[in-house]
Amino acid sequence: MPFSIPPLDSALDAALQNKIDQKTKPLGSLGQLEKLALQLGRIQQTLTPKLAHPHLLVFAGDHGAARAGVSAFPQDVTWQMVENFLAGGAAINVFARLNGLQLKVIDAGVAHDFGLRQGLIDASMGRGTRSYLDEPAMSSADVTAALARGAAIAYALADEGCKVVGFGDMGIGNTASASLITHILTGTPLTDCIGRGTGLDDDGLARKRALLAQAVRRAALPDNADVLQVLGEFGGFEIVMMAGAMLGAAERGMLLLIDGFIVTAALLAASRLAPGIRDYCIYCHRSAEPGHRAQLHDLRAEPLLDLGLRLGEGTGAALAWPLVQAAAAFLNEMASFESAGVREKS
Amino acid sequence: MPFSIPPLDSALDAALQNKIDQKTKPLGSLGQLEKLALQLGRIQQTLTPKLAHPHLLVFAGDHGAARAGVSAFPQDVTWQMVENFLAGGAAINVFARLNGLQLKVIDAGVAHDFGLRQGLIDASMGRGTRSYLDEPAMSSADVTAALARGAAIAYALADEGCKVVGFGDMGIGNTASASLITHILTGTPLTDCIGRGTGLDDDGLARKRALLAQAVRRAALPDNADVLQVLGEFGGFEIVMMAGAMLGAAERGMLLLIDGFIVTAALLAASRLAPGIRDYCIYCHRSAEPGHRAQLHDLRAEPLLDLGLRLGEGTGAALAWPLVQAAAAFLNEMASFESAGVREKS
Repeated sequence: MPFSIPPLDSALDAALQNKIDQKTKPLGSLGQLEKLALQLGRIQQTLTPKLAHPHLLVFAGDHGAARAGVSAFPQDVTWQMVENFLAGGAAINVFARLNGLQLKVIDAGVAHDFGLRQGLIDASMGRGTRSYLDEPAMSSADVTAALARGAAIAYALADEGCKVVGFGDMGIGNTASASLITHILTGTPLTDCIGRGTGLDDDGLARKRALLAQAVRRAALPDNADVLQVLGEFGGFEIVMMAGAMLGAAERGMLLLIDGFIVTAALLAASRLAPGIRDYCIYCHRSAEPGHRAQLHDLRAEPLLDLGLRLGEGTGAALAWPLVQAAAAFLNEMASFESAGVREKS
Repeated sequence: MPFSIPPLDSALDAALQNKIDQKTKPLGSLGQLEKLALQLGRIQQTLTPKLAHPHLLVFAGDHGAARAGVSAFPQDVTWQMVENFLAGGAAINVFARLNGLQLKVIDAGVAHDFGLRQGLIDASMGRGTRSYLDEPAMSSADVTAALARGAAIAYALADEGCKVVGFGDMGIGNTASASLITHILTGTPLTDCIGRGTGLDDDGLARKRALLAQAVRRAALPDNADVLQVLGEFGGFEIVMMAGAMLGAAERGMLLLIDGFIVTAALLAASRLAPGIRDYCIYCHRSAEPGHRAQLHDLRAEPLLDLGLRLGEGTGAALAWPLVQAAAAFLNEMASFESAGVREKS
């Protein structure tokens, strides 16, 4: 920190658009994929973008407030799901395998001792955050350190030649944390930022709303609260570290695959630290979690998929990845009217 | 003909739903992919569906009315694009390659002599249809023969072990033909069924509307017109042959990947001949062509993608195919709460 993400150069835009328009198809007929192709070329500053060594990073962390009942699942499910990731049995394993994304799991601060494990990056900030119902979830030093650890993970990927990184999350209670961050950073009414998460019933949803309203009152942030302070108040470790990884990845010119509600909360925070990051983002899906709407509105984002997903783990990013590959592929591989000997529109 | 497509047996539904619900994810959190997984299991009557040897069939044909100005492109583009398919340079080549679909191109009646060509199935019904502005596009004998040829292509694929078939189209003027079929079969006002196709300007759109209204008046079909008569009036060869292939594929228990406006016009016709076919269909995308809305409403279909595509060729089907694979993969490969040792919702 601070992160340096200059706005993208638009010098190649005209040449890219011309290349897209000369492909053997009606003008504009590939819809959102055409905008995507333009963005890929702009990020890599080339007419032939290459999406080399794509990765998906799942950041896992625990939340002190989870024990107070903001989730339908017990906190132990966080580490149990990390074990599931390491064993290859979770949804994100299946989708990453199917679509050719290399998966890495990061312990950003799970309340569990995993020991040294194949396939798990130990970047733990501690055994879960403190409960924001009583006190800030983490110290300002922890916020800075978590951002830096996240960025370091992205830099290491960049050094290996990785040009695409998707983001996913695991952490019981993390929709609550994302709701609080979204409420404060976007100014959207708190209730509109809160959903059922992993499946709260009506009573559970009412309890979650009451607890999060209590957390907002307790923190008593000023209207112009600094984003680092917001992250410190409400956490979690996985969200902050993910924001750091996003910033590091964009600094190195990588393409960012943005998943749903939790991941977009991390991006919202990152975008307040370095607005230029938004140029590097592909919004993969529209989550069924209601607070995602406020986030997408804030970021002026138009997601690729709208399938009613609300699983997390980066599953939306993994499912949309073939569409991103398709955008690069048509730009790189399709014939032009001239090369194919096809007559243009009369 | 007649085609026999019995309704699907729902005996396995409860077991399939239970398997889906026991996966390590919040209940229902994979949204539309969960419905898709259930459908795949129901079609194949198994808890472990296998999507073997997926193909994409592109049916090409010419339309007599194209010479009257219903399209922005000259008729020669049909055969030129078929050459582009055979050379591997069109959008559908790129997307089918990327996503692992085997592509087959069928000459259903292009106004061109291709000779014997590697990769092209010659099922030609003639050098394009007659113009429906003056007379029926094809005879009733042609309708029957085109349906049978399409079905034979599907049967041959089934005999090779193919379990999934996507559909695509090529034919200058075929949005006009699809508009007429959609208007008559769904009762939607003609204007709401007509769009800009490959890119008509305002004058072109006005001309297309006037010509198609003229065609409807000329044909003077009764309100309860037989679907075979509708197909004969308005063609085209590629649409009718595709309908036959759909019927044959569903008869053999294959999964049908339905593309956009032209392909859904063929399905509409097929569904009037054998309503059971709808159980076998996956609606891959929502086309930007306005008449697609009326078709989807008629079929009670909820498409997977909504990317503003209007290219045809089966590109929407090829782009959605990884989502279908993902639905089968999570059903087959994800761990259950029990097998992964993950606690369920408390």
